[in-house]
Amino acid sequence: MYQSFDDVSVPGASEERLQGLRRVLKSRKLKGFLVPHSDEYQNEFLPPPAERLAWLTGFSGSAGAAIVLDDAAALFIDGRYTLQARAQVDTALFEVLQTPEAKVSQWLKDRLGKGAVLGYDPSLHSLKEIDRLIEALGKGGIKLEPVTTNPIDRLWQDRPKPALIPVVVHDLEYSGRGAKEKIRDVQAILKQDRADAVLLTLLDSIAWLFNIRGGDIKHTPVVLAFAIVPVVGRPILFIDAAKLTDQVKTYLSDFADVAQPNALTAKLRDFGHAGVRVRLDPDSAPVRFAQLLESEGAKIVRGDDPCILPKAIKNESEIAGARAAHVRDGVAMVRFLAWLDDNAGSGRIDEIEAARKLETLRRESGQLKDLSFPTISAAGANGAIVHYRPTNASKHALKPSKLYLVDSGGQYLEGTTDVTRTIAIGRPNAEMRRHYTLVLKAHIAVDTARFPKGARGQDIDPFARRPLWQAGLDYDHGTGHGVGSYLTVHEGPARLSRLGTAELKPGMILSNEPGYYREGHYGIRLENLVLVTPLQPIEGGNRDMMGFEPLTQVPFDRRLIDTKLLLPFERDWLNAYHARVRREIEPLLRSDDRPWLREATAPIR
Amino acid sequence: MYQSFDDVSVPGASEERLQGLRRVLKSRKLKGFLVPHSDEYQNEFLPPPAERLAWLTGFSGSAGAAIVLDDAAALFIDGRYTLQARAQVDTALFEVLQTPEAKVSQWLKDRLGKGAVLGYDPSLHSLKEIDRLIEALGKGGIKLEPVTTNPIDRLWQDRPKPALIPVVVHDLEYSGRGAKEKIRDVQAILKQDRADAVLLTLLDSIAWLFNIRGGDIKHTPVVLAFAIVPVVGRPILFIDAAKLTDQVKTYLSDFADVAQPNALTAKLRDFGHAGVRVRLDPDSAPVRFAQLLESEGAKIVRGDDPCILPKAIKNESEIAGARAAHVRDGVAMVRFLAWLDDNAGSGRIDEIEAARKLETLRRESGQLKDLSFPTISAAGANGAIVHYRPTNASKHALKPSKLYLVDSGGQYLEGTTDVTRTIAIGRPNAEMRRHYTLVLKAHIAVDTARFPKGARGQDIDPFARRPLWQAGLDYDHGTGHGVGSYLTVHEGPARLSRLGTAELKPGMILSNEPGYYREGHYGIRLENLVLVTPLQPIEGGNRDMMGFEPLTQVPFDRRLIDTKLLLPFERDWLNAYHARVRREIEPLLRSDDRPWLREATAPIR
Repeated sequence: MYQSFDDVSVPGASEERLQGLRRVLKSRKLKGFLVPHSDEYQNEFLPPPAERLAWLTGFSGSAGAAIVLDDAAALFIDGRYTLQARAQVDTALFEVLQTPEAKVSQWLKDRLGKGAVLGYDPSLHSLKEIDRLIEALGKGGIKLEPVTTNPIDRLWQDRPKPALIPVVVHDLEYSGRGAKEKIRDVQAILKQDRADAVLLTLLDSIAWLFNIRGGDIKHTPVVLAFAIVPVVGRPILFIDAAKLTDQVKTYLSDFADVAQPNALTAKLRDFGHAGVRVRLDPDSAPVRFAQLLESEGAKIVRGDDPCILPKAIKNESEIAGARAAHVRDGVAMVRFLAWLDDNAGSGRIDEIEAARKLETLRRESGQLKDLSFPTISAAGANGAIVHYRPTNASKHALKPSKLYLVDSGGQYLEGTTDVTRTIAIGRPNAEMRRHYTLVLKAHIAVDTARFPKGARGQDIDPFARRPLWQAGLDYDHGTGHGVGSYLTVHEGPARLSRLGTAELKPGMILSNEPGYYREGHYGIRLENLVLVTPLQPIEGGNRDMMGFEPLTQVPFDRRLIDTKLLLPFERDWLNAYHARVRREIEPLLRSDDRPWLREATAPIR
Repeated sequence: MYQSFDDVSVPGASEERLQGLRRVLKSRKLKGFLVPHSDEYQNEFLPPPAERLAWLTGFSGSAGAAIVLDDAAALFIDGRYTLQARAQVDTALFEVLQTPEAKVSQWLKDRLGKGAVLGYDPSLHSLKEIDRLIEALGKGGIKLEPVTTNPIDRLWQDRPKPALIPVVVHDLEYSGRGAKEKIRDVQAILKQDRADAVLLTLLDSIAWLFNIRGGDIKHTPVVLAFAIVPVVGRPILFIDAAKLTDQVKTYLSDFADVAQPNALTAKLRDFGHAGVRVRLDPDSAPVRFAQLLESEGAKIVRGDDPCILPKAIKNESEIAGARAAHVRDGVAMVRFLAWLDDNAGSGRIDEIEAARKLETLRRESGQLKDLSFPTISAAGANGAIVHYRPTNASKHALKPSKLYLVDSGGQYLEGTTDVTRTIAIGRPNAEMRRHYTLVLKAHIAVDTARFPKGARGQDIDPFARRPLWQAGLDYDHGTGHGVGSYLTVHEGPARLSRLGTAELKPGMILSNEPGYYREGHYGIRLENLVLVTPLQPIEGGNRDMMGFEPLTQVPFDRRLIDTKLLLPFERDWLNAYHARVRREIEPLLRSDDRPWLREATAPIR
């Protein structure tokens, strides 16, 4: 199994660890220390040696930060993780606070006086993050001091060693564009921006640019590395040579130099001495590199990582791959839903068993490289915990008259999938059907949206919210995120959210996943991945429009639809979507799963 | 008449003026000079002595900027003004460029070499504007230099003198909150922000804070002045004493000191010497004040003008006033529309005559203080020019089988109105009806929107665009702007637009004015003012929601509605709206206008 269902946090360990950290801080004359979730690559899923926040606090969510002072400590998490954090963290040791209502800077200003010095590890915070903190804390006279070694790394006795999984070349068949051409594209951007070089620190950018993949991190086939791309000449990939086979070395040697990761500091010093203009992404580059470059005389050019946009705009090979991956993934999902209908009514299937079954069916394709993320397999009230992940300690059984929410995805060489369906176990009640139908209307509103050049994700997000807002309801997460091509399942720059300021461009793949959560009862989320596509000219129109093509091929649960609440165009959309799913998936099913699919995709009236 | 229909620009004058300006620049060793539309208060409507851009270029729009170099000159305007600028400006002298596609900084970088010095008047540019320009031009090695006297003011022979219209007190009956209380509110904000004082430079903020009104600027009852509010103690109002009657002096003396405008510089120097922390709004405060304060030792605290938000959130008196003003204004509009139906079919009414008639009917209320802005009275193809204003040179007649667009408003003591209707003259064709109905659907989508706390204008704007986007159409302006209370017709901070990042709050008044423009044929725009209101709890919902209450009481042209394109809820909305208009307006009409209103508001099926 790619997914582990063990609870990673060690209950009761926090007190001693916290005391240890406070002793180190005292010896270093620091009033406090910041412990972010991030590692030096700003990964969402961390390699085990980087799980510092979980080690200290017990909290295993994918975002958050702790602050430790000599007489107080707090864990800041966002709304998705409120319930999980309270369950995992010893609240006698850590105050658990929800952002953005609670602010790190305000909490610090309330507790620290003028002249207090707060430590941080400059490898773990981006330029922008530290800029903002300095500005916010400066008013209160609080100083920030970078540490050279992270005290947690000293205290952490049994810290895991980095894995050394071999790097593989991502074939042109899947990537659609050679590394040499991509490097040339990036160099053209640097030239335009008058930068002499860019330092790449985002792992998916590096994997995309060099067309390589690896296994250093769970669920995301990236490789721990840094890279420098000069405006002219060969890039340098800073990577542990132990992960490179001869074949990969030969592949890379065609267009790049390879160096050990510890050679990066010396290279940046050289840049400084030569007064080189280095582009850094203030949102993701560790501030340590900026501090080093500036102190050595380099000039920093702030700018987005230049790989982010071309990586998000999938080429024809990647689009064809995404379609193929989604058909394959749809087969596994359809078989899973059929199995669920046959078995879950007994009330004896639990969340982990269901997740295992789904992973097994995905593996039976023979093509599954990993899950895209730990499957959210959530029965009844657990569905209302937005980022719920079943563990052996928490698992519930799927019970009749309840809803079951499953949010999952697979990593295939052709692409990354991410799909959520909500299923009625037994007979749903009228309220469940009403809420499900409102979420379906939200989903359809996004799927059918047309929009002109220049439209951003934040222009689309309200379409999903409207059916819920009109009913006095809402959901506390974005409507969708970008998705990589056999890469990260959360990919920038575009997202369908109130924060989605990046323009939507043809070739981008995004999720469309509105939801509704009734705490203590159930959660509903309906997610397809969609491809941004240019539309044929619209009759009577005079502007070029774009729209979405759904990639996901999985039926929606017809038993949960209150057809009276659908407008004719919504009913037509559902019937057309289901007809397509049936057309694409049925030929690939074994004959005993076909009747289920035919019934699940029959037209509604 | 409050509105003048003369063409303000003097054709043919630009060449000599441009030559004169170039001579001055040469003598001052400047490679070029910036001529923005703005005055030192960032007004939209300028007092005549501040019309420098129009004097130089002939362009009379409400936004734009010219750049004059020794061998080139350009006028930068936004999409609303493309047609108007090309008509008014001698394009042999000025290249006319449309923002945001064309960028001032790029244009300059393409023409100026390293070390070139560009002059600007620091009274006419905000902090943020100059910050941005310095950053953008710095890369190209171009320097910006503030001038102490604006060369145009020297060259402008017959420059008008400032008007000295007496200031009046805006009664508590209308303002709803005393100046003393408002000042206390602002001081509480300063305390929280640890600022010692704020310098106010926005005229509507000053008029709002001190509850005064005046006549220095057309269409906007503000008073030219600056003000300083200290965190403790009495504010100082810097204003020409010639505009103050004894009564107003007595009123002001209760809570403020009054000084001549030329005393401000000395006061800011004193602040500098005392190291005072002065809050300045980087979006609106002239950079001159920031430069002066900083050079004299003051500390600048950047922050929004603290009056903007409380001013936008109307209190109960202001809301009651707005409702009353809109009923009164609705009577004038209904009488106008009835007159139009009786007379325009002849083809002999022209745009100016129509605008005059409408102003006359508004005046007949006996309460009209001014128009809110020059009436846009646009026949046929002129309706497609978004900010068209008829002049004696341009005026067209209203012709049968064409559309007529009228966008107008009145200033009343109780409030400011702004309404747009599009009317069929004679028989409209199917395409006109289809486009009108799409715009009506857009209007209804905004009016019926429900939204939670935290929603911003940019979350509402897409609702208006969706019906047009789905048809392959769009409009190149925002969906709505904030409106003041007997103040500016364009008021911050909220707007319904892709740039509307301010949260919507109960009490805000905004316009709802989607449109569609078919160049060379017609323009359609349907505008009501709406009030943000908290809603009663929605059955089955669990979140507090807000919505809009339409203030405007004017029928939509039923002859232009293609009822087949309306959803049942849209038809119901229209019928309910019309029933309300009839209920409110009919009793106030003379009996001969009543039949027209009854027909115009009859239910559609």
